[in-house]
Amino acid sequence: MTTSFHPPVRTLMGPGPSDVSPRVLAAMARPTIGHLDPEFIRMMDEVKEMLKNLFKTKNELTMPISAPGSAGMEACFVNLIEPGDKVIVCQNGVFGGRMKENVVRFGGECILVEDEWGTAVSIEKVKAAFAANADVKALAFVHAETSTGVCSDAKVLCELAQANGALTIVDAVTSLGGVNVDVDGWGIDAIYSGTQKCLSCPPGISPVSFSAKAVEAVQNRTTPVPSWFLDTNLVMGYWGGGGKRAYHHTAPVNSLYALHEALVMLEEEGLDNAYTRHQKHHLALRAGLEAMGIGFLVDEDSRLPQLNSVLIPEGVDDAAVRTALLQNYNLEIGAGLGALAGKVWRIGLMGTASTQRNVMLCLDALENTLAGMDAPIKVGVAAQAAAAVFAK
Amino acid sequence: MTTSFHPPVRTLMGPGPSDVSPRVLAAMARPTIGHLDPEFIRMMDEVKEMLKNLFKTKNELTMPISAPGSAGMEACFVNLIEPGDKVIVCQNGVFGGRMKENVVRFGGECILVEDEWGTAVSIEKVKAAFAANADVKALAFVHAETSTGVCSDAKVLCELAQANGALTIVDAVTSLGGVNVDVDGWGIDAIYSGTQKCLSCPPGISPVSFSAKAVEAVQNRTTPVPSWFLDTNLVMGYWGGGGKRAYHHTAPVNSLYALHEALVMLEEEGLDNAYTRHQKHHLALRAGLEAMGIGFLVDEDSRLPQLNSVLIPEGVDDAAVRTALLQNYNLEIGAGLGALAGKVWRIGLMGTASTQRNVMLCLDALENTLAGMDAPIKVGVAAQAAAAVFAK
Repeated sequence: MTTSFHPPVRTLMGPGPSDVSPRVLAAMARPTIGHLDPEFIRMMDEVKEMLKNLFKTKNELTMPISAPGSAGMEACFVNLIEPGDKVIVCQNGVFGGRMKENVVRFGGECILVEDEWGTAVSIEKVKAAFAANADVKALAFVHAETSTGVCSDAKVLCELAQANGALTIVDAVTSLGGVNVDVDGWGIDAIYSGTQKCLSCPPGISPVSFSAKAVEAVQNRTTPVPSWFLDTNLVMGYWGGGGKRAYHHTAPVNSLYALHEALVMLEEEGLDNAYTRHQKHHLALRAGLEAMGIGFLVDEDSRLPQLNSVLIPEGVDDAAVRTALLQNYNLEIGAGLGALAGKVWRIGLMGTASTQRNVMLCLDALENTLAGMDAPIKVGVAAQAAAAVFAK
Repeated sequence: MTTSFHPPVRTLMGPGPSDVSPRVLAAMARPTIGHLDPEFIRMMDEVKEMLKNLFKTKNELTMPISAPGSAGMEACFVNLIEPGDKVIVCQNGVFGGRMKENVVRFGGECILVEDEWGTAVSIEKVKAAFAANADVKALAFVHAETSTGVCSDAKVLCELAQANGALTIVDAVTSLGGVNVDVDGWGIDAIYSGTQKCLSCPPGISPVSFSAKAVEAVQNRTTPVPSWFLDTNLVMGYWGGGGKRAYHHTAPVNSLYALHEALVMLEEEGLDNAYTRHQKHHLALRAGLEAMGIGFLVDEDSRLPQLNSVLIPEGVDDAAVRTALLQNYNLEIGAGLGALAGKVWRIGLMGTASTQRNVMLCLDALENTLAGMDAPIKVGVAAQAAAAVFAK
């Protein structure tokens, strides 16, 4: 007979999911009501309004997709890309590669702009790609690469796309709520995110937003959207508002309670305060790590405060350290992916996990663990270096 | 400033979501852990094993899709159907129509077998469709039509498909956990369900199972699966087991805690006991309704015990009754869909909502509400009629 599952209480400082606030967990456990209940529909309207504020957009098509971030990505590509469409895809990590996969599967022609993992998308290379290719339908890039901790210049990339008459498709899974995302200000046409990063919800939902230009592009398709579940024309019948709600699928009621509560918490704090908090704790973590002698993969000007890719000290066994942190401190940090496996750790300070307590825990646990393995680090200095940042 | 959402406490006796047990809600609120955490992976293995028992299958590809039932449906069609494939789709309600939409969107040729809403799929018509069409790749049908409360004969339909060398794609969203579903015994090749019906979880997850023959069909495709999120080849890298788990998407950790707990509860009760309980409460509800003078849409031999489509008495205002039930009793029952709108109510007795208490509540609330509207029903007899069934 299988028994109930009682998870260990971890501190989640990997690339996501991040720690979820007890307020959000409590919201998730409230009694399920019907997905067409008038009270639920009122809550949906609030979720939509709060998402618009978070994305900084007036886009009517702003809503949570009932599935994780990778389905949010697919919602953007499956609706906007038709067979033969040319798409410039910027790849500087895992998720740019996934965008390419999406383009290919929906019959698009992918023009790949590659940058080294750990560096931002090169504006010059994107310029060159536009110069070399006429009739590009869309430029797709990852704002915050979860696999490397790099932030690319979304504003300038969007300007480039607009100057060339192309739509923009932007991955904001790790950026939303942690650093500025300005959909209307930058002119983003399709954007998707996830709940399990800087929104500090359990994973499973993907907020998306489509501009009027993107909606028009979907409506002007000459082929049907090759997905029923993700067809925005249908999904909007349910999320669209204006009184009548058409049944599309059964919304994940309790997961949306959680998202609602997380958005309320973010509203209470204020977006700018949340960005400042992420930045401050990043600087404290960085001061502590650098005092220990641990450096960063990413150049200072494109580092994400919420996801720190740090270089594993010479001779240290990556997996042994992560296992020790998990077993001895219930602390999860992330491994490197692809060519960065064994070379970097990814330390997240996302959403409600971006706290002084977590910075101190991580520095202490890492110092003790590495010192116990005779790793080449300086001991006894990290906590003080971080404390100096907190004191500012 | 938006405030936290506190849903009303409803009794959910519509077509789903159904009432969720406090045990399942509590499980859902346990602390989030990483989707690659060894403890989470252990839990995933238990979920897979319990799903295999529930589906009565040894299929290795048995897992929960990280999205609602309509994504489970799409997972079956997007993986199995290639452009030009002939598919016989049986339509006797809303969800057969959605299957047709899926076939068309993935470029298949749909051979439609239509039956009146409220009747089971006609075996004779399916036979005729096979006789009239060579090289049919798959037969798709809905085991338990949520829109009408009809159960079709899955066993015989699967035999027909096998005799004609076709795969079977079966919708078990409303049947799984409420009536017998025997994947290996009947030879089902692809099946999907939902968590929010007889499993009594919050909505958002779709258990699926693919036979070895279905897996082979996916592997023998000549075109790539036009979905990255739902490509079983990729999803199985994460859910497949055998030690190493490849990252695909971030699993909806807390929703899977809920599913795990619901499956543990079902295991504790025993599947046969759960079926018997659904049948008994159906008979009690029916006795009470018939005593009042309210009849059923569906013939006795194809009625689903967990979803009762009952005829709205002459002259009664459908919406006014449902609104009164919700406002005065916090009781949700379902409206009719399509041509049945205004003609039937759909009363669910699904999963943990299939209780004596709910049967009595529903009969009392309906009797009081209808009597208050001078509807042509007999009063004062329903509770006793139901009690007689409980006493058996």
